[in-house]
Amino acid sequence: MKRFMCGLAWAVGAAFVASPTAAQQADWLDQYRSDAERIIAAALDDSTAYERLAELADLFGPRLSGSENLERSLDWIVEKLLADGLENVRSHPVMVPHWVRGEESATLLEPRERNLPMLGLGGSVATPEGGITAEVLVVSDSVELFERADEARGKIVLFDVPFTTYGETVRYRSRGAIYAARVGAVASLIRSVTPRSMQTPHTGAMGYDPAVTAIPHAALTVEDAEMLHRMQDRGQRIVIRLEMEAQTLPDAESRNVMAEITGREFPEEVVVLGGHIDSWDVGQGAMDDGGGCVAAWEAVRLLQELGLRPRRTVRVVFWTNEENGLRGGNVYRDSLGADVSDHVLAIESDGGVFKPSGFGFGGSDAAYDIVRRIGELLEPIDAGSITRGGGGADIGPLMREGVPGMGLSVDGTEYFWYHHTDADTVDKLDPHEMGLSVAAMAVIAYVVAELPEPLPKAER
Amino acid sequence: MKRFMCGLAWAVGAAFVASPTAAQQADWLDQYRSDAERIIAAALDDSTAYERLAELADLFGPRLSGSENLERSLDWIVEKLLADGLENVRSHPVMVPHWVRGEESATLLEPRERNLPMLGLGGSVATPEGGITAEVLVVSDSVELFERADEARGKIVLFDVPFTTYGETVRYRSRGAIYAARVGAVASLIRSVTPRSMQTPHTGAMGYDPAVTAIPHAALTVEDAEMLHRMQDRGQRIVIRLEMEAQTLPDAESRNVMAEITGREFPEEVVVLGGHIDSWDVGQGAMDDGGGCVAAWEAVRLLQELGLRPRRTVRVVFWTNEENGLRGGNVYRDSLGADVSDHVLAIESDGGVFKPSGFGFGGSDAAYDIVRRIGELLEPIDAGSITRGGGGADIGPLMREGVPGMGLSVDGTEYFWYHHTDADTVDKLDPHEMGLSVAAMAVIAYVVAELPEPLPKAER
Repeated sequence: MKRFMCGLAWAVGAAFVASPTAAQQADWLDQYRSDAERIIAAALDDSTAYERLAELADLFGPRLSGSENLERSLDWIVEKLLADGLENVRSHPVMVPHWVRGEESATLLEPRERNLPMLGLGGSVATPEGGITAEVLVVSDSVELFERADEARGKIVLFDVPFTTYGETVRYRSRGAIYAARVGAVASLIRSVTPRSMQTPHTGAMGYDPAVTAIPHAALTVEDAEMLHRMQDRGQRIVIRLEMEAQTLPDAESRNVMAEITGREFPEEVVVLGGHIDSWDVGQGAMDDGGGCVAAWEAVRLLQELGLRPRRTVRVVFWTNEENGLRGGNVYRDSLGADVSDHVLAIESDGGVFKPSGFGFGGSDAAYDIVRRIGELLEPIDAGSITRGGGGADIGPLMREGVPGMGLSVDGTEYFWYHHTDADTVDKLDPHEMGLSVAAMAVIAYVVAELPEPLPKAER
Repeated sequence: MKRFMCGLAWAVGAAFVASPTAAQQADWLDQYRSDAERIIAAALDDSTAYERLAELADLFGPRLSGSENLERSLDWIVEKLLADGLENVRSHPVMVPHWVRGEESATLLEPRERNLPMLGLGGSVATPEGGITAEVLVVSDSVELFERADEARGKIVLFDVPFTTYGETVRYRSRGAIYAARVGAVASLIRSVTPRSMQTPHTGAMGYDPAVTAIPHAALTVEDAEMLHRMQDRGQRIVIRLEMEAQTLPDAESRNVMAEITGREFPEEVVVLGGHIDSWDVGQGAMDDGGGCVAAWEAVRLLQELGLRPRRTVRVVFWTNEENGLRGGNVYRDSLGADVSDHVLAIESDGGVFKPSGFGFGGSDAAYDIVRRIGELLEPIDAGSITRGGGGADIGPLMREGVPGMGLSVDGTEYFWYHHTDADTVDKLDPHEMGLSVAAMAVIAYVVAELPEPLPKAER
């Protein structure tokens, strides 16, 4: 801890000496410095977060909406929240989509037989009994598909789209089956959405358009997508047999789980923080988003352990069904009734609890000025950069009604390597980095909950 | 090509101006500079190497000794060597071990059911019909195993040994089944030998000791080895069902394939260069060692295309069965009869044709002084570092009898990520870096074959 304390002392000194602006405003921020230091020290001195995430991940595995794994992990979380002595531990029922993968495979039949590692995309329909066996047309993007529309009819279309950004590339996962169906394809495959692969297929959500046939949609690996493309470029005929038993069952019962430290002055005013507890049905959902849930949980638990009960209520929520429905985030918002204005701030972590740099903020300029100052309390751990724009899927319904929102910003180098794969496992995370994420969330939540006035809302 | 020629001009100038030693000795090296420049320019201007490797990899897949894939790929290589117009294209028959994997699986039964990605290790025996179901003992190394020998009897032992260096960690792959059998284990599992994993099992060679029972031996992923270790640390009972159909069939027919440019003055003296054409039965064997084979092949093909026929014969060899027998390297040496002294130099690439830095050299000090000078010709492409110690498995039998040997040194950052996995595919390599490897091998082979005197042998 020595090195850390030196860094903190330096940063505090610098705020007084080097920055006139900081010095002028130091009055209001200074009262939170010692609590922030205590929170940071406690978060870095405690490995509970990582150990709990590992236990959650190892005990239950992945937690897809509708699965027994998800509900059993929620039971375990409720038990631990009660054991932690947090207040108002409770669940809100949420009906969630229930898609199940079943058995599935993709087999290259021509030019040579080989099993192709694959994952059906979440929400896909099944193939007919016996699968679909068809020639493959590989395209580099939707432009090429529409240029070659005549060649696509009756074929399996493979979108071999190199990763640029997630936002850009994921469109083929979301909408590839629609594009392919429009030109008469019988099934649709994508190159997995990732900048790095070790023969690793990535799953994720997808959609259909009622105006065209719903065709099966699955992801191959980067390696195989490139190989099939090379084969096509050499003039070889490519034939694949795709077999998928995927089905969408009736909606299942799940729940948002939450717990809190009740505010000592304004208990009805709430700073909410959390992540989504559901994951895809592969790996352990440790990065996406077990880590975000457990970091938020640990942030609240540490405040309680330190005896810090702020003016407002601090609430951790484990939102359900972010991945394929966002039902948890919507039900949470609806549970607040017509007026969400008692929610002072919503914080989400959903990018993996890697080394944090700060937060992205969505809200009014006046609120931004305040949280940016609060970010200074995180400079000793290099996590104080509060940038414009940010939030999270689960807190989106609140933010759209004016609640200020913050999303934890972390080193994203490796996140999409593992995203929605069997390799989303707890070993990819680091206990110290996770501790930094806990510290960052706890300091922001605490100080905002302790401010004399609520954060200014945006004009609506 | 402009940027490259500028670099070359600079480096050539520097050799004359800045280095007195180089200037004094420039006489003999200078006569090779213009040929070296032509070779380098040609290698970097030509993507044949990468394209051929991709074609080999895509057409045939992995090439385990005894497999049809290996023999079909050798047929294809012979056809191309003849089409290239290389001389003395021929094959030496080699009888090779014939191990086949068959169906295999590892299933975690307790504390929760899950399929564990795995690969049986090459040479392992099968499990009995119905598999082996047993409790698991996880150990961190052989010391812990022998300390806990009483607990191991009747169990499946899992060696969860973190990667340090390949040489150190691979011992558990090679000898883990022996260690585990000595303490009465019924099967042996290792953590895959790699510094990075995406739920990726790694196969490779293993051995038995006739003094103890031959028990099945397989690799789990890093992720699962760590998970099982955490489960054990939490006091959970771990049970795995291991099913492996592996069998060793009678030796199969394979061959070393070779071709050459016959020396114009001393045709009986030979500079041999190559890699091993066999691979494990996963991925494409592109890094290990299709790339080394094709780079050596391309080096010889380019010399021919440039009309460079050196004094001595330059021979490319595709050695068979390096991975699980080294029969190719041994048969090659034996084919030379009692006296191998006509072999002037043997060069091997077997670390992936990533960005080359130079070569490791094994041989006499007098020969080292000469090849180190020749290395200067590769300084324009930063591949001129010739270090002491090096060679390759296939050229080992020659080197042990005094033939100077060189192994291509490359950036090894990622090699063991993909080594012996389904992810050893051509996309991991870069056409430009492969061109640099071709250039490096071609320049060394050509100049050594062109020297007035053969490289001095070690005193024996």
